[in-house]
Amino acid sequence: MSDTRGTVAAAVAPRPRVVVIGCGFGGLAAVRGLGSALEITVIDRANHHLFQPLLYQVATGGLSATAIASPIRYILRRHHNVRTLMAEVETIDAGQRQVLTDVGPVPYDYLVVAAGAGTWYFGNDEWPRHAAGLKTLDDALRIRNRVLQAFEAAEAEPGSDARGAKLSFAVVGAGPTGVELAGTLAEIARDTLRDEFRHIDTRHARIMLIEGGPRVLPTFSEAGSRAAQRQLERLGVEVMCAHRVIGIDADGLDLSDADGRPLRIDAGTVLWAAGVRANPLGATLGVPLDRGGRVIVEPDLSLPRHPEVFVIGDLAALPQHQPPVPGVAPAAKQMGRCAAGNIRASIEGRARRNFRYVDYGSLATIGRNAAVAERGSLRLAGWPAWAFWLFVHIFFLIGFRNRFVVMIDWAWSYLTFERFARIITGPLRKRGER
Amino acid sequence: MSDTRGTVAAAVAPRPRVVVIGCGFGGLAAVRGLGSALEITVIDRANHHLFQPLLYQVATGGLSATAIASPIRYILRRHHNVRTLMAEVETIDAGQRQVLTDVGPVPYDYLVVAAGAGTWYFGNDEWPRHAAGLKTLDDALRIRNRVLQAFEAAEAEPGSDARGAKLSFAVVGAGPTGVELAGTLAEIARDTLRDEFRHIDTRHARIMLIEGGPRVLPTFSEAGSRAAQRQLERLGVEVMCAHRVIGIDADGLDLSDADGRPLRIDAGTVLWAAGVRANPLGATLGVPLDRGGRVIVEPDLSLPRHPEVFVIGDLAALPQHQPPVPGVAPAAKQMGRCAAGNIRASIEGRARRNFRYVDYGSLATIGRNAAVAERGSLRLAGWPAWAFWLFVHIFFLIGFRNRFVVMIDWAWSYLTFERFARIITGPLRKRGER
Repeated sequence: MSDTRGTVAAAVAPRPRVVVIGCGFGGLAAVRGLGSALEITVIDRANHHLFQPLLYQVATGGLSATAIASPIRYILRRHHNVRTLMAEVETIDAGQRQVLTDVGPVPYDYLVVAAGAGTWYFGNDEWPRHAAGLKTLDDALRIRNRVLQAFEAAEAEPGSDARGAKLSFAVVGAGPTGVELAGTLAEIARDTLRDEFRHIDTRHARIMLIEGGPRVLPTFSEAGSRAAQRQLERLGVEVMCAHRVIGIDADGLDLSDADGRPLRIDAGTVLWAAGVRANPLGATLGVPLDRGGRVIVEPDLSLPRHPEVFVIGDLAALPQHQPPVPGVAPAAKQMGRCAAGNIRASIEGRARRNFRYVDYGSLATIGRNAAVAERGSLRLAGWPAWAFWLFVHIFFLIGFRNRFVVMIDWAWSYLTFERFARIITGPLRKRGER
Repeated sequence: MSDTRGTVAAAVAPRPRVVVIGCGFGGLAAVRGLGSALEITVIDRANHHLFQPLLYQVATGGLSATAIASPIRYILRRHHNVRTLMAEVETIDAGQRQVLTDVGPVPYDYLVVAAGAGTWYFGNDEWPRHAAGLKTLDDALRIRNRVLQAFEAAEAEPGSDARGAKLSFAVVGAGPTGVELAGTLAEIARDTLRDEFRHIDTRHARIMLIEGGPRVLPTFSEAGSRAAQRQLERLGVEVMCAHRVIGIDADGLDLSDADGRPLRIDAGTVLWAAGVRANPLGATLGVPLDRGGRVIVEPDLSLPRHPEVFVIGDLAALPQHQPPVPGVAPAAKQMGRCAAGNIRASIEGRARRNFRYVDYGSLATIGRNAAVAERGSLRLAGWPAWAFWLFVHIFFLIGFRNRFVVMIDWAWSYLTFERFARIITGPLRKRGER
């Protein structure tokens, strides 16, 4: 702490201006770590911070969109040195030290880029139309609409073959998001919707989880993968590992198995949880990127030859860090705190610190009472892992009200098997359209 | 009650088929009134029943969309004789006794048409683009986006004149919806957003309520109107009565005062609460309509020459009924129960009953602790009216969970002045677009 933080000193020398791009877990942690002595501008294209780990709950009608999102302005309302700007960043001009946005340029002395990653379809331009990704609130609401409309369309369908295809759901990618989506879809079909339809039996819905690699949850231990697959199959999910997707169209998917044999699957609804790619903003920095489009940073998270620019979260690559830093919320938060500390260190004339990821373990939920949790040699599965998952997620939710409301909603769902947020909004898909 | 309701009798003679179009207050009351002996199909273009009186709360970020909407299937899941069909009704063929939908024809023995009313811009095709109406959940989310984006755009705007226009909101029509919207917008600008912006002072936002008639809340007593206007003005709303709208464009409105003098108003956001018109489906019945497009029905709510067809709610006109039946939720519910009773009477060989509206009074809310309530000579204003309004609205909300969640959300908002559902979703308006 130095005296330059006082208001008198600030009136004499202008306060350093820090711009933070993106207010996800990383950006928000950076803002909080920067303290009250600097002039901070947070730029985000959305007006809300999103609690992404629960996005699949919105996509499956378990939580309302507003339960997992808080206005950024509201979160930062008491940080009087922080200005929030809702804008689209077009490019970063590191030479002139300014960020160019659709509402004009924003100059900076220090910059933190926390723009995250988006859904990636491996370069297949047709696939996004047929397979919905899950990265934003709008994505989640689109998936919710598609899933609910699939059951509605099946109920209205006279032919039984067409009905079967409409009741087939394929989830591509068996990382935590894919596992959560598949498990929850199975629960919806089996329990939530059971009594609500007259022409179809929703329990006959087919839920497939398709993974290119040899096992589900590839970042977990083999025992964890096995436990997850067992729990998924108990819920009625068809797990198809070692199957690569080679085509997606309006009626289903074309797969290729481990021996290269083709396999066709009819599915009225395809959800995509297979690939992410760093925000293209990283490419405007003019420095080397890794294969995933991520910016290769120095050990202190700054840009080579631009010590005033930091890149954190899913947009940052630290090739020298072993083991590799995973693209998860705790890593983004830790990077945000590290970048903020290094900016303060530079201003206060102290030495910077290299980033070191502290691994608190991995968690994935599958459904009611079903989850896996791992930390080092500690492994949980089933009910204890699920309870732990619930506790951790509610604990880290932003804001007291959200925590409380989500808790009530979950208690309600748990007791009644009901998912209240099953509302179709927005433009409807016409018949025959995807 | 007759023996034909028993399962044995039902197996011998097919049960009469009743189709109900629209699952608003009227349609839902009809379904509930029809009992379990008939074969009922409910057709709605949405998958949810909507608690319309609280729609303005969604439009202003006080409640999430899912708090005031319940899936129709869920509401009716234990009515095993009821089938729900999410479909768009294209036309009614009263001669062939079938409803033609986008998923095929649905035959009926009895029909209840409860298709309601939509926003009406007095035939001005350009106005809907510039002035958002408030009839559906999508309407409410569109208004929420526009209002929140207006504040965001003002914060990003460097010029102070343009900033002022962006912070000007005009609500057209001072019925209950217009009064609620204007009062709530004033509260948002004055209290909710106060600490969240750095460049603008949201308390300087201009909120105008424009009414063609001589006073606000024209269906209330003159004393009630005066009380409402006083409460609106205390909140900072500019009430402009006796001003007709003659034009709406991208930058504001053209008005004409009582003496025909023109007046131009700059407003970045225009909300429309001035007109409703009956669903065009009524016109496909081939019977006379009134000026508002409503179907003129017999005293028992059936169609002239089609005693098996009933029209209820905002779509029905009862010219012989004095005083006129207002277009409010209690009237729709009473009509639904009456039509259901008359269908059962016909089936059971009893005489039908004419519809008689029972007026339980009028209620309109203006803001925190501000409302007016009237029943006969009983008149309340201010805090007691507001408390009564709160109680009534929570009491009539569908479903225990919704009631509970809305209560908690309101308690939270009341204590903190916060409106949590201030999330911008969906496609954003580009700069310069409306």
